Amino acid sequence: MVDPVRIAVVGGGYGAKVALPAYQELEEFEPVAVWSRRPERAREVAEQAGVELGTSDFEELLAVPGLEAVHVATPVVTHLSFATAAARRGLHVLCEKPLGDTLVEARRIVAAIREAGVVGVVGYELRLKETRQRLIDRAREVLGHPRMVAVSLVQADHADPYSRPYTWVHDATMGGGRLQGYGVHDLDMLLEILPDVEAVAAATEVGVTMRTTGGDELRPVTAEDAYAILLRFRGGGLGVVTLVATARHPRGDLVELHGEGGTVRLDAEERVWWGRAGEDLQCEGPFDSSSSEAFKRLACMFWAAIREGKPPAPSLEEGLRVQAVFDAVRVADVERRWVRPEPATVWP
Amino acid sequence: MVDPVRIAVVGGGYGAKVALPAYQELEEFEPVAVWSRRPERAREVAEQAGVELGTSDFEELLAVPGLEAVHVATPVVTHLSFATAAARRGLHVLCEKPLGDTLVEARRIVAAIREAGVVGVVGYELRLKETRQRLIDRAREVLGHPRMVAVSLVQADHADPYSRPYTWVHDATMGGGRLQGYGVHDLDMLLEILPDVEAVAAATEVGVTMRTTGGDELRPVTAEDAYAILLRFRGGGLGVVTLVATARHPRGDLVELHGEGGTVRLDAEERVWWGRAGEDLQCEGPFDSSSSEAFKRLACMFWAAIREGKPPAPSLEEGLRVQAVFDAVRVADVERRWVRPEPATVWP
Amino acid sequence: MVDPVRIAVVGGGYGAKVALPAYQELEEFEPVAVWSRRPERAREVAEQAGVELGTSDFEELLAVPGLEAVHVATPVVTHLSFATAAARRGLHVLCEKPLGDTLVEARRIVAAIREAGVVGVVGYELRLKETRQRLIDRAREVLGHPRMVAVSLVQADHADPYSRPYTWVHDATMGGGRLQGYGVHDLDMLLEILPDVEAVAAATEVGVTMRTTGGDELRPVTAEDAYAILLRFRGGGLGVVTLVATARHPRGDLVELHGEGGTVRLDAEERVWWGRAGEDLQCEGPFDSSSSEAFKRLACMFWAAIREGKPPAPSLEEGLRVQAVFDAVRVADVERRWVRPEPATVWP
Amino acid sequence: MVDPVRIAVVGGGYGAKVALPAYQELEEFEPVAVWSRRPERAREVAEQAGVELGTSDFEELLAVPGLEAVHVATPVVTHLSFATAAARRGLHVLCEKPLGDTLVEARRIVAAIREAGVVGVVGYELRLKETRQRLIDRAREVLGHPRMVAVSLVQADHADPYSRPYTWVHDATMGGGRLQGYGVHDLDMLLEILPDVEAVAAATEVGVTMRTTGGDELRPVTAEDAYAILLRFRGGGLGVVTLVATARHPRGDLVELHGEGGTVRLDAEERVWWGRAGEDLQCEGPFDSSSSEAFKRLACMFWAAIREGKPPAPSLEEGLRVQAVFDAVRVADVERRWVRPEPATVWP
Repeated sequence: MVDPVRIAVVGGGYGAKVALPAYQELEEFEPVAVWSRRPERAREVAEQAGVELGTSDFEELLAVPGLEAVHVATPVVTHLSFATAAARRGLHVLCEKPLGDTLVEARRIVAAIREAGVVGVVGYELRLKETRQRLIDRAREVLGHPRMVAVSLVQADHADPYSRPYTWVHDATMGGGRLQGYGVHDLDMLLEILPDVEAVAAATEVGVTMRTTGGDELRPVTAEDAYAILLRFRGGGLGVVTLVATARHPRGDLVELHGEGGTVRLDAEERVWWGRAGEDLQCEGPFDSSSSEAFKRLACMFWAAIREGKPPAPSLEEGLRVQAVFDAVRVADVERRWVRPEPATVWP
Repeated sequence: MVDPVRIAVVGGGYGAKVALPAYQELEEFEPVAVWSRRPERAREVAEQAGVELGTSDFEELLAVPGLEAVHVATPVVTHLSFATAAARRGLHVLCEKPLGDTLVEARRIVAAIREAGVVGVVGYELRLKETRQRLIDRAREVLGHPRMVAVSLVQADHADPYSRPYTWVHDATMGGGRLQGYGVHDLDMLLEILPDVEAVAAATEVGVTMRTTGGDELRPVTAEDAYAILLRFRGGGLGVVTLVATARHPRGDLVELHGEGGTVRLDAEERVWWGRAGEDLQCEGPFDSSSSEAFKRLACMFWAAIREGKPPAPSLEEGLRVQAVFDAVRVADVERRWVRPEPATVWP
Repeated sequence: MVDPVRIAVVGGGYGAKVALPAYQELEEFEPVAVWSRRPERAREVAEQAGVELGTSDFEELLAVPGLEAVHVATPVVTHLSFATAAARRGLHVLCEKPLGDTLVEARRIVAAIREAGVVGVVGYELRLKETRQRLIDRAREVLGHPRMVAVSLVQADHADPYSRPYTWVHDATMGGGRLQGYGVHDLDMLLEILPDVEAVAAATEVGVTMRTTGGDELRPVTAEDAYAILLRFRGGGLGVVTLVATARHPRGDLVELHGEGGTVRLDAEERVWWGRAGEDLQCEGPFDSSSSEAFKRLACMFWAAIREGKPPAPSLEEGLRVQAVFDAVRVADVERRWVRPEPATVWP
Repeated sequence: MVDPVRIAVVGGGYGAKVALPAYQELEEFEPVAVWSRRPERAREVAEQAGVELGTSDFEELLAVPGLEAVHVATPVVTHLSFATAAARRGLHVLCEKPLGDTLVEARRIVAAIREAGVVGVVGYELRLKETRQRLIDRAREVLGHPRMVAVSLVQADHADPYSRPYTWVHDATMGGGRLQGYGVHDLDMLLEILPDVEAVAAATEVGVTMRTTGGDELRPVTAEDAYAILLRFRGGGLGVVTLVATARHPRGDLVELHGEGGTVRLDAEERVWWGRAGEDLQCEGPFDSSSSEAFKRLACMFWAAIREGKPPAPSLEEGLRVQAVFDAVRVADVERRWVRPEPATVWP
């Protein structure tokens, strides 16, 4: 019988909708508190989940007796304050991706967690999907030196002003946008295979510029709903990472990896194609591609790091690695130039 | 019964292998001469094709009695001298793509052809494939304001040093590379649909750096075998155009167009998927995707412009339009910055 | 008694609303035809103005017997074709500002007009306002070497989606935007005083991203409604030119010129303040600031160039001068860098 | 009766002329020492002010018994050494703006003050002028999403070589220039309202290149006497901040803020105009705009932070926030490109 970790979920969006149900289902966790900016939302989530405390007072949450861990799932620009406050109270931290709004913020989060000596992991669960796990494994087997790699996502959930109501993810000043929503996951996956990015160029765009608040009003959207990133890998090889969330017709994610040693491809039907140079491509799958299953895997890894001392994963270092490239993408987009990612170390 | 145009083919590569057989097959043409840099190659090609003259003396070719038209299919950096010399002799010109190595060269070619009052067309035959024609038509019907468009080519013919022998297309100083080989065709197709490119960023690479000469020797390759281009369209919308010629496993060409009005997609099985916003995608095809058939269509359009006074197509203006973007891509790649294409006019 | 010039107005917007009434009022002109893209609009305008011909067939307009001059007031991207066609028919041309969508287009227009030997002027009438004339005169008197010059416009007519209906001026691909609407006038005025611009940086923005079509629908706006331009003058001195058309409260135009020799200022009450170093500022005015009066002045200058052989003004050369800076502003904005304007000569 | 803070003033310019008289006037402070680089100037200032110690030996100053706080008002490049030395001695620090010559220096100052656990505030007193306070308040009330904001200063005190004698503020290598003199105040004010700057472009200039030393000699000026800054705000909106100190005729400061929600304007007569969209502008004032009164307010806030534990303001974090943008402006000017400000955190 496992010894459950007493955890609090911070954030009334993804945290309440995806993380909390998973924690309730898993015997490895006992959710004991929920924080949301709005008190009524906090209470509502807590009540529905049968969790004792629903609050918008973070100090109250941190003071819950026996609390061991915190899952920070708030707007990106607020990660720094929530995650560092929790770590300084000696709580283990699962911080949503990206770690911070900038590399500097991410470094401070990592420094605070290290200093506190607690366990820290980053919410890059999408790499734990069966599809992506198999892709990563096969790539490590056969890819070799990269020649061209591409990740292409086509989603329709932002295609018109009424397709999804306005939240902080549509607000650039809150750290919103599809890059923080999906782009960092895709970069994380690529960096698992090809960690050496030499430089990036990028373009982002707001295609649907107004969005419903749920009522009659439309609010201006300032965070990108489409992006295209070029990567040059150190030692050679090109990469392209694109997403459009405003397509009129969605399709499954495509990942294609072409290397000197061979080819690996994830197709829109969740199958993995792979083969070495000179051999035919083989097809495996379809594999499970559920995000919620992937999150449960990540949660169990968090538990194992806390209870069994296993190496935390996805690690803070991996979180910084993505953040460095993400930061470079933001600068590249704003300054309209190629940018070399900074080294993904803590200091500085 | 048609009145055939007496034509000379200039170039012992594509000209001899693809264009000449097509001219022989078509009753609209009577091939009367072939030029190649090497006299023995010129004679060999002429003999095999049953053409009267095979020569490496361009003046001799131009002096063939009754000659009416010239198909310039030489290395890109030589287009300017062959095409302008032919035009000045009053010969109609089919010039291979891209028109020139630079926009300045292309403008001089166009100016010379206009001044001579002869017919000029540019070898952008790939847009005449049934697949691409259907794609272009559907895009004009349903796409509307663009959001994300992507063209992705994966070829394996350059995957290793022995997969294809060294020619001028591997030599950057001769105007070689996959951008001139395929990239310009893809840009031409996109510009048929979305003519307003605001700026481009680009990266090119030589993945297989040595190539067989046919004998024992390996020669260094200097012209790109992979490229990735980002486009921003004026008024909004992003685009990505990529090719890797060194993949270990090829796949069919993919084109995806996502717009405010709807979606159009060409898949690897030569089918076109299309639909308006709010409607399901429909599937048509597979369509014919043969390059040689496409070339025959272009040749017949050249004939019709000469004999029936039809508007020449693909036109010199369209050739300049591609060239302006192609030039911007070259500058963007070398200077590692975003570049706005110059206006695609003749002057300056 | 003056000998009126028989003129045709091309364009159903500014041409019909401002230019045509002025021509009717002035004894120097006899408007004889109107062109609009939509036949019914053309007929409506012609009828209301008592003009014989209202047509959407440009050839029909050019063929009007006795027609002497054409006023091209169509979307910017169409100036080239209308203006050159008219010039080649031997008609005098008043071309709206900016001459073309790009410097290259503008050069071709100027070349066509020169080649035809007809009179050409550019629609920079705002410099002919009494306010701006006085400002320019005083600046030439006292400014000397520039230190800081600023032009600042605050307008409210684009402040919300329903404040002005959608037309081509909201479409970037038609050459729309407030830079073409106002920015070029302000640059023209500055260049009258300080012709040597060394480099520009610029930022543009679409603040109100959707606009009514008049009916229920909102269309996306792609052309800027705000801009800010930095200028460095050759030999020293800085400049700033800004406009926001989406302000909630408008105010009168401000122009401030600070030079080594003195100061000149146009205030929001149409008064000109000026003074030499060491002397107090004097105040003159208020002066007339009517755009329609300014246009009549320009029209009479066009007449004088045609009938009395006076030097055409604002001249084609001045039109190119503005266009070179305008082009640099566009490139600077898109490529996010400083850009040195090209020399404003015709070839190239 | 208040308990006065025993303070030392470091710097024989602004410190001696503005700060010291204020401290003498305020019952919250007891000035006990003055430092100046030149011993005779130090003694002269001390004597005139009736302060015990006037010295050019900083160690001597730090050793004054009972000394509690230091006001660092030396050339910008020396802030780092004075401020950190004082903090390490346990003294509270009021550091003049900008904190340091670069963001790195500023971070080191902030780190030293935090580590020492003393109170630190930054000399951004101009935001405490009644005029600017009212402007900031009204902007927070009505501005909403920004569209165009502008700050424009026109001063005549540097208009000719003899208008003001040469000091370190004319020496770029000492951290001089009008950007450090006024620009940082204006940026500070803007950032109070709109903290999210995405990128800046900038141009600076030395208009009056020689300046009197007080005697016969003229020395070359290397620090800017005019600047123009463009800002893009994250999430949209443009800004322009300009100053010319070499105008022949000065005028009052102008600030204009145009937002989606409304308009706020500070005019040259110290009045504030403000209004929501759809409502008329209201006029308030004139308000007090005295810098010395503003400084006294800041001094009292420093006292309250020391004696009553109130949050220090303007805070070190706000000092870093300005510094990050100021640094970006310097890089943008020198490298002639757009620059995204670094995050304004202490580490790195």
